[in-house]
Amino acid sequence: MTVDYDLVIIGAGPAGLTAGIYAARARMKVLLLEKAVPGGQILVTDWIENYPGFPEGISGYDLAEKMRVQAEDLGLEIQTAQVHSLNLSADVKEIVLKEKTIRTKSLIIASGASPKKLGIGEDKYMGKGISFCATCDAPFFRDKTVVAIGGGDTAVQEAIFLTKFAKKVFLVHRRDELRAAKILQERAFANDKIEFVWDSAVTGVDGLFGIENVHVKNLKTNKETTLKADGCFIWVGILPNTEFLNGAVKTDEFGFIVADAKMQTSVPGVYVAGDVRDTPLRQISTAVGDAAIAAVCAEHYIENL
Amino acid sequence: MTVDYDLVIIGAGPAGLTAGIYAARARMKVLLLEKAVPGGQILVTDWIENYPGFPEGISGYDLAEKMRVQAEDLGLEIQTAQVHSLNLSADVKEIVLKEKTIRTKSLIIASGASPKKLGIGEDKYMGKGISFCATCDAPFFRDKTVVAIGGGDTAVQEAIFLTKFAKKVFLVHRRDELRAAKILQERAFANDKIEFVWDSAVTGVDGLFGIENVHVKNLKTNKETTLKADGCFIWVGILPNTEFLNGAVKTDEFGFIVADAKMQTSVPGVYVAGDVRDTPLRQISTAVGDAAIAAVCAEHYIENL
Repeated sequence: MTVDYDLVIIGAGPAGLTAGIYAARARMKVLLLEKAVPGGQILVTDWIENYPGFPEGISGYDLAEKMRVQAEDLGLEIQTAQVHSLNLSADVKEIVLKEKTIRTKSLIIASGASPKKLGIGEDKYMGKGISFCATCDAPFFRDKTVVAIGGGDTAVQEAIFLTKFAKKVFLVHRRDELRAAKILQERAFANDKIEFVWDSAVTGVDGLFGIENVHVKNLKTNKETTLKADGCFIWVGILPNTEFLNGAVKTDEFGFIVADAKMQTSVPGVYVAGDVRDTPLRQISTAVGDAAIAAVCAEHYIENL
Repeated sequence: MTVDYDLVIIGAGPAGLTAGIYAARARMKVLLLEKAVPGGQILVTDWIENYPGFPEGISGYDLAEKMRVQAEDLGLEIQTAQVHSLNLSADVKEIVLKEKTIRTKSLIIASGASPKKLGIGEDKYMGKGISFCATCDAPFFRDKTVVAIGGGDTAVQEAIFLTKFAKKVFLVHRRDELRAAKILQERAFANDKIEFVWDSAVTGVDGLFGIENVHVKNLKTNKETTLKADGCFIWVGILPNTEFLNGAVKTDEFGFIVADAKMQTSVPGVYVAGDVRDTPLRQISTAVGDAAIAAVCAEHYIENL
């Protein structure tokens, strides 16, 4: 059976591009498939202060572009294509696209994840007041007022984190109690900066240059109010981008791909890197770390075939 | 009992500085201790092509400096001090220096590792022909002749990797057989570009601007020869920088610190990041990924104390 590539990488965010940098530099015959534009979620990240090496910070667009250029200059081939499905049952792995099937010795899945959206203006105000990541963006809201949405562990933990910076945090939740761990709840209740808005949903945001108003509807009374705020953090869940996966590798209960310390999935020769992995943290730094390991281990894997 | 810091970080290489960037940005009260100059091993790395975000490459010195400035601008306090020992038996962790003892709620050990040296001119020719990392430096030796030293898994695996770039690889080993896994041995023996120099040790290197000659002594006959070569890769082992550790956290058989997926060691509140960790790959990318996780998890840990 003919094999087209040593390695195929799915997804051109920081994880996929880093895997590409390592694999191309190791002279593997490697192809990166990206369904949209290289960069992934950082393309919609306004400003990045915590990726090491950029003391003045860097825009997500610029960092994505630097990574793409670096990978392509080292010889990485990038194709625009959506993966339809995978066939990983044989040693040679098949990646099924719309028009053709690609055959490869090894595979790195770096297809990312997407925060669940509420349809309240996320696309328009992303980077202009709307955020899905307090670790990333909380320091930009020093002495500001922000609205946080959600009631689970992440929402409560991140709302508490926000109070280190913001002067006031409204935590809007659909129910009249939190789902988060008890200890997180206790800390949130004891925090003077957090005001709870129970039984409510955010219906929209508006503002001229950034967010100025957050519109809230009480789901029991249907009464609508407007909160004056400079930001809105949404933590109602995150979904792995695995529409093509169909059980081909093992995932956790939320659909994130499980891997060992070498980033190998439940299928030998198939690796995972970045946000789509079952990982304790989703950052550019961690995507880059995962991907270096995945690429080097994929290289060792095919050398030993 | 008074506590001086939320978090103390030991070591100011890419791992320690990244942990500092994350912790300072999260407004933790954090101190970084470095026994020498911030930067760690990358200070002696001539040129880096595989850290994502720098398409033209960057010198190790410049990247270290960028990371240091980024961390200090975000508020990280860096002190020059050598850690003498740790006392981790209580909730408040004690870091014993020569002049004083520092008390902290959490700790990240990012003290790095050092390749074993042979005393053949490593310091003089580091970045000018001598290297300890083929993944990092092999592409700089395209169509050159290089000498590789060692007989274990790493040496043989990396020597094979070198043949993707170099036109010729001499593998010098002290014994008349390799210690590496059989499959690696078979691949090395089958590789036309590798020439074995058995029962021999490299005694020195010389050259005007970089390496030109590698001097080899046969340990059985005492006969000395000179190999014409442009580079010399040394893989005789790597040692964790843990002289202060004295069993305070669990390590693997080689002394590298063992951690879970959250980078937590065997002691709650004590984390590890970078080369000193028991990890499948030691790169700037992986150090940065480890450190982001360690810092965020340390922050969650102290919030829940």
